[in-house]
Amino acid sequence: MFFHTKQFQYNAKPDNPDPIFAKQMQELLGGQWGEMSVMMTYLFQGWNSRGPAKYKDMLLNTATEEIGHVEMIATMIARLLETSPVEAEKAANGGGAVGAVMGGSNTQEAILAGMNPQHAIVTGSGAAPTDSQGYPWNARYTIASGNLLADMRFNVTAESQGRLQVARLYQLTDDRGVRDMFSFLLARDTMHQNQWLAAIEELEADGLEQTPVPSNFPQEQEMSEVAYKFMSFSDGQESSQGRWANGPSKDGKGQFEYVAEPQAMGPREEELAQVDPRLYGTPKQPLPPASS
Amino acid sequence: MFFHTKQFQYNAKPDNPDPIFAKQMQELLGGQWGEMSVMMTYLFQGWNSRGPAKYKDMLLNTATEEIGHVEMIATMIARLLETSPVEAEKAANGGGAVGAVMGGSNTQEAILAGMNPQHAIVTGSGAAPTDSQGYPWNARYTIASGNLLADMRFNVTAESQGRLQVARLYQLTDDRGVRDMFSFLLARDTMHQNQWLAAIEELEADGLEQTPVPSNFPQEQEMSEVAYKFMSFSDGQESSQGRWANGPSKDGKGQFEYVAEPQAMGPREEELAQVDPRLYGTPKQPLPPASS
Amino acid sequence: MFFHTKQFQYNAKPDNPDPIFAKQMQELLGGQWGEMSVMMTYLFQGWNSRGPAKYKDMLLNTATEEIGHVEMIATMIARLLETSPVEAEKAANGGGAVGAVMGGSNTQEAILAGMNPQHAIVTGSGAAPTDSQGYPWNARYTIASGNLLADMRFNVTAESQGRLQVARLYQLTDDRGVRDMFSFLLARDTMHQNQWLAAIEELEADGLEQTPVPSNFPQEQEMSEVAYKFMSFSDGQESSQGRWANGPSKDGKGQFEYVAEPQAMGPREEELAQVDPRLYGTPKQPLPPASS
Amino acid sequence: MFFHTKQFQYNAKPDNPDPIFAKQMQELLGGQWGEMSVMMTYLFQGWNSRGPAKYKDMLLNTATEEIGHVEMIATMIARLLETSPVEAEKAANGGGAVGAVMGGSNTQEAILAGMNPQHAIVTGSGAAPTDSQGYPWNARYTIASGNLLADMRFNVTAESQGRLQVARLYQLTDDRGVRDMFSFLLARDTMHQNQWLAAIEELEADGLEQTPVPSNFPQEQEMSEVAYKFMSFSDGQESSQGRWANGPSKDGKGQFEYVAEPQAMGPREEELAQVDPRLYGTPKQPLPPASS
Amino acid sequence: MFFHTKQFQYNAKPDNPDPIFAKQMQELLGGQWGEMSVMMTYLFQGWNSRGPAKYKDMLLNTATEEIGHVEMIATMIARLLETSPVEAEKAANGGGAVGAVMGGSNTQEAILAGMNPQHAIVTGSGAAPTDSQGYPWNARYTIASGNLLADMRFNVTAESQGRLQVARLYQLTDDRGVRDMFSFLLARDTMHQNQWLAAIEELEADGLEQTPVPSNFPQEQEMSEVAYKFMSFSDGQESSQGRWANGPSKDGKGQFEYVAEPQAMGPREEELAQVDPRLYGTPKQPLPPASS
Amino acid sequence: MFFHTKQFQYNAKPDNPDPIFAKQMQELLGGQWGEMSVMMTYLFQGWNSRGPAKYKDMLLNTATEEIGHVEMIATMIARLLETSPVEAEKAANGGGAVGAVMGGSNTQEAILAGMNPQHAIVTGSGAAPTDSQGYPWNARYTIASGNLLADMRFNVTAESQGRLQVARLYQLTDDRGVRDMFSFLLARDTMHQNQWLAAIEELEADGLEQTPVPSNFPQEQEMSEVAYKFMSFSDGQESSQGRWANGPSKDGKGQFEYVAEPQAMGPREEELAQVDPRLYGTPKQPLPPASS
Repeated sequence: MFFHTKQFQYNAKPDNPDPIFAKQMQELLGGQWGEMSVMMTYLFQGWNSRGPAKYKDMLLNTATEEIGHVEMIATMIARLLETSPVEAEKAANGGGAVGAVMGGSNTQEAILAGMNPQHAIVTGSGAAPTDSQGYPWNARYTIASGNLLADMRFNVTAESQGRLQVARLYQLTDDRGVRDMFSFLLARDTMHQNQWLAAIEELEADGLEQTPVPSNFPQEQEMSEVAYKFMSFSDGQESSQGRWANGPSKDGKGQFEYVAEPQAMGPREEELAQVDPRLYGTPKQPLPPASS
Repeated sequence: MFFHTKQFQYNAKPDNPDPIFAKQMQELLGGQWGEMSVMMTYLFQGWNSRGPAKYKDMLLNTATEEIGHVEMIATMIARLLETSPVEAEKAANGGGAVGAVMGGSNTQEAILAGMNPQHAIVTGSGAAPTDSQGYPWNARYTIASGNLLADMRFNVTAESQGRLQVARLYQLTDDRGVRDMFSFLLARDTMHQNQWLAAIEELEADGLEQTPVPSNFPQEQEMSEVAYKFMSFSDGQESSQGRWANGPSKDGKGQFEYVAEPQAMGPREEELAQVDPRLYGTPKQPLPPASS
Repeated sequence: MFFHTKQFQYNAKPDNPDPIFAKQMQELLGGQWGEMSVMMTYLFQGWNSRGPAKYKDMLLNTATEEIGHVEMIATMIARLLETSPVEAEKAANGGGAVGAVMGGSNTQEAILAGMNPQHAIVTGSGAAPTDSQGYPWNARYTIASGNLLADMRFNVTAESQGRLQVARLYQLTDDRGVRDMFSFLLARDTMHQNQWLAAIEELEADGLEQTPVPSNFPQEQEMSEVAYKFMSFSDGQESSQGRWANGPSKDGKGQFEYVAEPQAMGPREEELAQVDPRLYGTPKQPLPPASS
Repeated sequence: MFFHTKQFQYNAKPDNPDPIFAKQMQELLGGQWGEMSVMMTYLFQGWNSRGPAKYKDMLLNTATEEIGHVEMIATMIARLLETSPVEAEKAANGGGAVGAVMGGSNTQEAILAGMNPQHAIVTGSGAAPTDSQGYPWNARYTIASGNLLADMRFNVTAESQGRLQVARLYQLTDDRGVRDMFSFLLARDTMHQNQWLAAIEELEADGLEQTPVPSNFPQEQEMSEVAYKFMSFSDGQESSQGRWANGPSKDGKGQFEYVAEPQAMGPREEELAQVDPRLYGTPKQPLPPASS
Repeated sequence: MFFHTKQFQYNAKPDNPDPIFAKQMQELLGGQWGEMSVMMTYLFQGWNSRGPAKYKDMLLNTATEEIGHVEMIATMIARLLETSPVEAEKAANGGGAVGAVMGGSNTQEAILAGMNPQHAIVTGSGAAPTDSQGYPWNARYTIASGNLLADMRFNVTAESQGRLQVARLYQLTDDRGVRDMFSFLLARDTMHQNQWLAAIEELEADGLEQTPVPSNFPQEQEMSEVAYKFMSFSDGQESSQGRWANGPSKDGKGQFEYVAEPQAMGPREEELAQVDPRLYGTPKQPLPPASS
Repeated sequence: MFFHTKQFQYNAKPDNPDPIFAKQMQELLGGQWGEMSVMMTYLFQGWNSRGPAKYKDMLLNTATEEIGHVEMIATMIARLLETSPVEAEKAANGGGAVGAVMGGSNTQEAILAGMNPQHAIVTGSGAAPTDSQGYPWNARYTIASGNLLADMRFNVTAESQGRLQVARLYQLTDDRGVRDMFSFLLARDTMHQNQWLAAIEELEADGLEQTPVPSNFPQEQEMSEVAYKFMSFSDGQESSQGRWANGPSKDGKGQFEYVAEPQAMGPREEELAQVDPRLYGTPKQPLPPASS
């Protein structure tokens, strides 16, 4: 069960409205690597967890924090779509940043600016659960497989892609209020990258899972002769000197080997069987009509 | 530029047709973590790469191998939808596994079996670029950010989730031909998990990127006091003893700290500004009609 | 069965072309609350109706009218993408509003304007079945549950959101031709909001359905002690004075009650059961390999 | 900011596992009218609200409650995918409900049962953020327009469709544990239908909005002569006696009128203008090649 | 503007209900090649047409017919979900085809049968605008480019795929009522395949368009030396004897030529330029932190 | 199995970067009719083919060529997002085309220009597998029915729509490098349109399939009296003189006939049966509560 308190985890107020940046910042809210994704991912990983309590607890702790991040970003976007005090004055005369869109003297300019039209037409100057291109968030961004090593590797990725996008957006604005909130989000993403890396360490130390995932599948049933070979299917051999082509494998169970000209191990591609005539696919030779 | 050879990388033939398993196996083809996803992901990472040549070469090598995996799985599914020699005989009498669906004496049974109806109606006993629930593959499964550490962390995840799903499907069938192909795919996924872990090691050793991603963002501009704190937003403290709450952080730049009762650092949630009357949102108090 | 007449229900001609407004107006055509949505929703509600004939007749009447609205809006958009007489002249010299996009002297300006690129590349100056962000219309916007009270509540919503969006778009243009068509659509939406509210009144008067939907479910099988309590899960009590927290409930079957500090009525969240080892999820403690 | 407590709002435990019902129950979790939809809808309506504090407070209260409902349903589904104590015993011998899927003696039967294959392959016996057909939840189910009357009409719909679906699912199971949770959800949906109807009453009483939404648009700018006419575009006149065709309109501003044979008010559909030759659409007559 | 008459274009009544076939038949309604697709495609092609009046007229004629086909199929599906008179009797005792799903003695059997759960939970025994796998129809199935030859080629495809699917579904049922309706739809699809082929003939005869589309693009600006060469990128030469590799090209403007070993005509793939450091992509060598 | 060579099939380098055109050109990469679509479509048609070897060989040849086209276009887009030498100089001072987006003096201008924000935030100046509006590519663009005539008609369409879009994009740029690559793609599309038309000729000559598809369905089971009638459902008779309304049908099996006023051949639309009370749909008259 959840509770809400009417205080933000950190500041969420821009110095000035900026409808163009509001459009771009949607990527952090409803984008593939935005905060809605980590919020829903950690919630489902926590709720579905059948492992030790400490992992479930950790997942739900961070999931709950992320709901608060979604709250901050949604609020920031709503405020970026507002008129500032100065603009409010102009708005009375039909101007202002948002005001311009609504028919003032700067209309053309603001429209040209490429504001997200749905911020006016659909949300009425509110945040939308979509990305910076207006594509709606969807639940395929939520990953929860029940295997915590597979999932925490995803979590490391999510926090990496997420922090990368915040850093790029940091460069797209010089609003101090926005950058202040970003400095907080960047730091939390630093923590969360570290957190999932540490959890992976713990999971392996606890003997619950290791590389290759799933480690509990009996490895003698995989074809061991191709389990540590790097195969080159492109001309050139730039990749032959990489760590992935030499030395012990990362799981400590094999030796990497470079295969410069991999051979097909399967048979010549023989033809598929004749199609059932009642499916009306193209047969190998003309057929009489399929009765029915 | 690409070339194709009419030989499979490995065997792709079931002992017997099985339309139900064909439906389930679609997850490996067009599912979120199926082979189409890694094929397209590695292609785009390779094509977009602006880093050292060895990474681009490696990415395109493995991408090209994956096209061949997609080929094997598509062929396997098409064959699982075929009648076997014995069944072909029965099919003449209106029977057989696929035949049953088409009006034979076992119709009801086969339909009850929950075959994917599109395998009959849409593809005519061919593989479909969809997952086991019929949801079409889409390009949000393709990840290529330009930052190779962020992306290779994704690749480790993809190979982990992918191998996990092959292992689960291995349990859902006892067809020796299918399991033979799975033993090959499991081994290649073992290699690829190791490969991306090794590539991450190399990337860090090359000094190109490290934790936290992006490492090149000046860290003094993030709010350092929350960069290594684990915050508990749920009652209970099971997670306080985890590696993520104690000891040096994984990036070596801080010390993890457990915060049992995190305080809001932001302001009381004040109200958003009045809505522009020309957007017809709900105002704080009644307004006169907005002229236009 | 349907017939078409080559006359518009009302005017659908702008005074001037305006490719930017054409992009924005797509929201009314292929957006979530656009005319395609009400057209398909009313058609399916009508076709699926198992209730009295007057409701089915009404639904199909209005559905058929809406096909004509889609026609008007599609035509309006196509004309907004045309060159006007004056611009046609300029077009001969490589100018004009659309012409500019195609390589004339004003190219940069028009491109900057943020025209929908698919209006040039995909539709060739025709309307598209997408919203103002280019997201394609989909059938999840079609609601038909078989329960007319549930569905007509949706219809009231659809006409409210739709009229709201027309009103907002009215503010984004001062083209008299466009506004003329909008004055017609606004009036029809006024009718349709009233129509569905009246139909709800009739449905209740006919004794076919009432609050709470579905009213035919035996209410003694719901947990009556929480059926009229407003529960506050956030600090602050601003909402305690609202109509929803005091007085008789709207269905006349209970009294609203305000619960300032709702208690969890469920058990402590105990752990989920151990995972089946053959699914390779993370277990509570290390397990031996799962044989297969 | 949000907090979580490790206690369920109400019971969430089935008497027995049932993977088929787990598939069906997904509709309540990730379906269009499931709990994720109301949770996200109320959160965004609350965060974006620019109206009086009591509405924002109410929205966030109920939104926060809904997160707890999502938690209960996700847990219930995870448990429906578990083996019971008795089945656990059988599982050791390769049986059990989920066990069967994994290779036991009842394999065929369980597979025939039409279990969601992703519950085995993708989530490993956990809940998924998808509906009963495996279609992922998406943010188009989240409605927040900034106009609270338009939005609360949606909320009434959402609680009506949602309660309708719980009632239908109630009929699809006789598990007492599941029905116990449903009795709670049905009651809360009863409250929430009443709550939004009451909030609409209050919103109108406060003078903030009324029919037709948006009421603040100057009504003299709509074409009043069609604002209260019911138009019949189908043969037959069953609908002419309905409340929507007679008497005062529900907004009190007009009289309903029935139009048996509505006439087109627009012009004959004249042809669209010639296509820009550089767009290569089909022209009215052959054209010389478009130079470039 | 459109009108509706309460008579079906042809019969739309099954002899018996059959919820499994109802699920499968959804492919004809809301599938990619179902009737909703041709209805919307022909409407948009007609509305957007800027060519001669006879094409626009033809398109809107057939589009309007297709709305009536959607009506027939939706009704057929709703009836397949009904209990028959006999079953209605049984339903009183908790039986019947749909009844079984609702808790009767045959519950398990019917559920096993793999009925679409949304036919019970979401539509309440009505048709849904989705395909046979529950995936919602979307507007990407609507093709209207403004170039009638490109579009009519699509129309030929759509009627071919559509007729193919009806023929396959014909084999999946032996219900005489369903087959009666299918005999009508098959014939209309025969007409429509012929119609679009004839329209293509006319379009070329009118001199409005020809192969290659768009024929109005000045062909000297394409690289003529590769315009009629068949290139083989796979080993084996089975395709060298095909019509596409020999003789005059179909547009009469060239000679087909077979290229057994096509050479790359582009340069060696040189590296992409260095990434802008402010985008934090992986650089070719370590970089100092990007200031901001 | 596939191989890659590090040489482009043709040139893929622009004279100058142009982030706006990069956005528009995405349509050729990840759009519905872009190169990813033909690549995946031909691969699946080839892999699923059960017809003569020459068709399978041809399909896989051209499929493999298309992977190389995707490679060229992805590279071109990545380069359009780069700073040119001159701009690189400016970039040092915070300028340049992409540089501007990142905070230089021309920031506002470049942002106004409507660059795809995901080219900065998500891909870091790489190509994305999406269309020009940011909508991700999905597998519904992949068509493979098993019936080669149905599918090759689609292929003709795909190459027509594709060449049309290249021709339109040709007009949207005057960059010589881009136009050089387009001249190559236009020529290959000319070949491919001819190729599929020739393959259709061959397929018919081989006696494998003909109009109407599927020709193997016994035509006596379709309702022959409507198989060659053009029906007019709109007023006006412009279409009565078309080829589709007169003369022998294109399949040579009938005579086209024009029906000016088509009559409904089906029954009056009678009511659907009563709803099962346990589904809580709206009944024809009030019902007692449904027990459960």
